[in-house]
Amino acid sequence: MTVNAHDEVRSAIASLLRIGEPGDGLLKRLVDGIGPVAARAIIAAVGRGETTAHDAVQGLATTGAEAAEHAQMPEAIDRWAVRAGEAGAVGNDLDKIARIGGRLVIPGDDEWPRMLDDLGPAAPLGLWVRGSASLGAVLTRAVAVVGARAASSYGTKCASDLAWDLAARGITVVSGGAFGIDAAAHRAAVAREAPTVAFMAGGVDRFYPAANAELFEQILTTGAIVSETAPGMTPMRHRFLLRNRLIAASAQVSVIVEAGWRSGALNTARHALELSRQVAAFPGSVYSASSAGAHRLVREHEAELVTCSDDVIALTDDDTPALFDAAAVGDAPHSGDRSPSSDPREALDEREKICLNALTVSKPLDVGTIASRAGLTIADALNSLTALDLDGLAARRDTGWVKLRKSRG
Amino acid sequence: MTVNAHDEVRSAIASLLRIGEPGDGLLKRLVDGIGPVAARAIIAAVGRGETTAHDAVQGLATTGAEAAEHAQMPEAIDRWAVRAGEAGAVGNDLDKIARIGGRLVIPGDDEWPRMLDDLGPAAPLGLWVRGSASLGAVLTRAVAVVGARAASSYGTKCASDLAWDLAARGITVVSGGAFGIDAAAHRAAVAREAPTVAFMAGGVDRFYPAANAELFEQILTTGAIVSETAPGMTPMRHRFLLRNRLIAASAQVSVIVEAGWRSGALNTARHALELSRQVAAFPGSVYSASSAGAHRLVREHEAELVTCSDDVIALTDDDTPALFDAAAVGDAPHSGDRSPSSDPREALDEREKICLNALTVSKPLDVGTIASRAGLTIADALNSLTALDLDGLAARRDTGWVKLRKSRG
Repeated sequence: MTVNAHDEVRSAIASLLRIGEPGDGLLKRLVDGIGPVAARAIIAAVGRGETTAHDAVQGLATTGAEAAEHAQMPEAIDRWAVRAGEAGAVGNDLDKIARIGGRLVIPGDDEWPRMLDDLGPAAPLGLWVRGSASLGAVLTRAVAVVGARAASSYGTKCASDLAWDLAARGITVVSGGAFGIDAAAHRAAVAREAPTVAFMAGGVDRFYPAANAELFEQILTTGAIVSETAPGMTPMRHRFLLRNRLIAASAQVSVIVEAGWRSGALNTARHALELSRQVAAFPGSVYSASSAGAHRLVREHEAELVTCSDDVIALTDDDTPALFDAAAVGDAPHSGDRSPSSDPREALDEREKICLNALTVSKPLDVGTIASRAGLTIADALNSLTALDLDGLAARRDTGWVKLRKSRG
Repeated sequence: MTVNAHDEVRSAIASLLRIGEPGDGLLKRLVDGIGPVAARAIIAAVGRGETTAHDAVQGLATTGAEAAEHAQMPEAIDRWAVRAGEAGAVGNDLDKIARIGGRLVIPGDDEWPRMLDDLGPAAPLGLWVRGSASLGAVLTRAVAVVGARAASSYGTKCASDLAWDLAARGITVVSGGAFGIDAAAHRAAVAREAPTVAFMAGGVDRFYPAANAELFEQILTTGAIVSETAPGMTPMRHRFLLRNRLIAASAQVSVIVEAGWRSGALNTARHALELSRQVAAFPGSVYSASSAGAHRLVREHEAELVTCSDDVIALTDDDTPALFDAAAVGDAPHSGDRSPSSDPREALDEREKICLNALTVSKPLDVGTIASRAGLTIADALNSLTALDLDGLAARRDTGWVKLRKSRG
C-alpha cells in the first residue's frame, strides 16, 4: 500500500471516524476548515475539560475559520467530546485493522476513491478497507446492484445474471453484502473471479450478516470490504442508510433489482439521484411485493427501466473502450437469447430491403409508386411495408409511406 | 338509431369504404374536398369509362378543389375505379349490415366518435358498427388494453384484472378482439357487464378469430364491434395495422400489457404516440419474451410503466367525477393488496409524527435539536428520522435533517 498522507493525519482521521457518526456534515466542515489533526486536538481538549466548546469555537473564529460560523458547532463539539472520552482507545483502531490485514484509506492516498468527494459535506473522512483490490482503481468503472433482502428467486436470478455479465465486461459490482439481491450480486462477481466491493454498515472486522461470512472471505481475495464505521462497531439502522450513500456515490449507475415498498434499496436510489448519478430498476411481476418499490421508481421517472447488462451499460457515460470489449462480451455464458439484435434492418428479407430502399425520408409515396420502384406487386409491397412499419423502419404519413430515419427498434 | 346525415351521403360512404383501403389519405382528401357523393360519382364515371382520371382531376382543378393538386390523385382514382368495378354490389353493404342488426355510423351522426377525427387525413370515412352501445358515448372515457396473442398466463391475468377494475370505474375497455391479451380484457369487461368495444380488421359480419365467437356475441349485448372494412371482407395483415390506429385514437390511454419484440401491439403504441395519446406498458419478467416489447417501450420513454388501474387512471387527463367514483372503486373485487396507501404519512407511528412536526422544510436541524424539540431521546429521534427518510418524508441535508415538502412515496 502506497502511503501519501502523513501518519499523524491518518491517526487523527482514525480517531474522528470513531468519534463522529457517518456522514456527519458538521465534523466534515470542521475537518475541511482546520484539518483533521487540529479538529481532533480541539475535541480532545474539550473532552479533557481544558477548554469549553464555546471558547474553542471563539478561538476558531479569531483565526477566520468558516467552520466557526455554524451555530450548532459548539453543541456538536460537546457531543464529539463525550464520545472521544468514551472511546478512549484512540490509535488502537489502526493497530486493530493492521492485525487483520486491513488499512485506513484517506483522501490523498493513491487508493482514495475520488468519486466519493462528490458527496461534499457528506463525504467520508476516511474508509476502513480490507481485501486485495485497490479501491480507487476498481471503482473507476463500477455499477451498484442492490435490492431487497427478502428477494424472490426471480430477483436473485436477475441480480446474479446482471452481476455476472457486468463482471465479464470488467465492471466492478458494488453492493451492501446483505442477504438476497446484494449477496447474489457479489456471488456472481466472485464466481467470475472479478473484483466486487461490499460497503458495510458496521466495522469491517465483523462480517455482517454472519451467515455470509464465506462470501465475505471470497470477496477479500479479489475485491474489497469497506466501511467508514470504526472496527468493532455494530451495524445500526441509521448506519445502513448512511452506508447507502457510499454505494450510490461509488457507482456510475445504481441498479435496484427488487425493492419492496419501504426497502432500504430505495434509499440508495435517493442518494444516487441527489448525486445526479443514474438510477435503474428491474421490472418484475405486478403481483410481487418485492418489485413494488422498483416499479414505483420507474413510474415516477426516478429510475430507468433496465432488463439486462446492455441496458445498464447504455446508461453509463463512460466510453472507456473496456466497457464495450466485444471479446469479453462474447465470453459471457449467461447472455442468453433475450434481446434480439438492436438493428431491425438485419432481420429484413430481400423484398423488405428493396422496399425500404424505394422509400424516401421526406416525401410520402403511395403504394403503387413504391411497388413500381421496387419492382414488386402491390400486394407484396403492402406486405413488406407492413413488416417495415412493425419494425419501426417505415411509417404511413398522410397519403403514403415514408422511411423513418432512425429506427425505434 | 338517430340519423343526422342524409341517406345519399351514407350510401356514398358505404361505397367508398369498400373501394378504398382503410386509412387511405388520398381518398379522405378527396372526400373532404368535394364530399362523398361527388367523390363516388367521379370514381364511378371513371370506372364506367365515361371520363379518364386525368380529365376528372382537371375538372376538379377548375373548381379550385385542393384535392386536385395531389400529383398522385389521377393514379389513385384509376385504382379506386378498378375496385369500384370489381365491387359491383354498391348499396348492398347497407342492406347486409341492416340484416344482421348493424349500422353504418358516419361523421355528423350523434353516435360518431369525434375523437377519431384527431386522425386527420387518416380518419375513417365511416364505421360499420354492431352492438347495443352508442359508440360515441361509450368511447367518451375509454382505455385500450392490448397485447400479445401468445400471452403468458401472467399477462392474461394482468389484462383481466386491469379491464375488470377499469370497467368497475365506468371506463370502457377498447381492444382488438384477438386471442391472448385482447380477449382477456374484453372478457373481464363483459363479466363486469360493462360496455367494451372491439375494433376488427375485417368485416363486422365475420367473427375473427372464429374461436372467440361466443365472446363477440357477449360483447354485442352491452358493447360494440366496429370496423371500417366493408362487411364480408377478410382481415388482412395491413388491415390489422390500420385497425390499430382506430384503437389508439379511440382511447385516452393505450395500455400494452404484454408485447413481444415484433408485436402488433407496438404498432398501436406508435399510433397513440403520433396522436399524442398516452401510452402505458405493464412490467413482467425480463426472461419472458412476451414482455420484451413492453419493456422496450418503457426503456425508450415511449410508454409509462403502470402496474394497476390506479396507475392507468392517473394518466388520463379526464377529471370527470365518474372516473374517480369511490363507490364503484370499492366494488372492485380484484383490487387486491398490491399498492399500499399512496400517502406514507398514514403509516407513521406517534414518534415519527412528532419528529416530522419538529422538522422544517428550509433549515436543516441537527439530531440534538430535533430530539429536544420533539421531546425524544437522541436514539429515538435518529430511529424516527431514519424511518421518515425511508418514507421520503425527511432527508439529510448538509449538517442536519429537513422535512421534504412533497413525499416521493
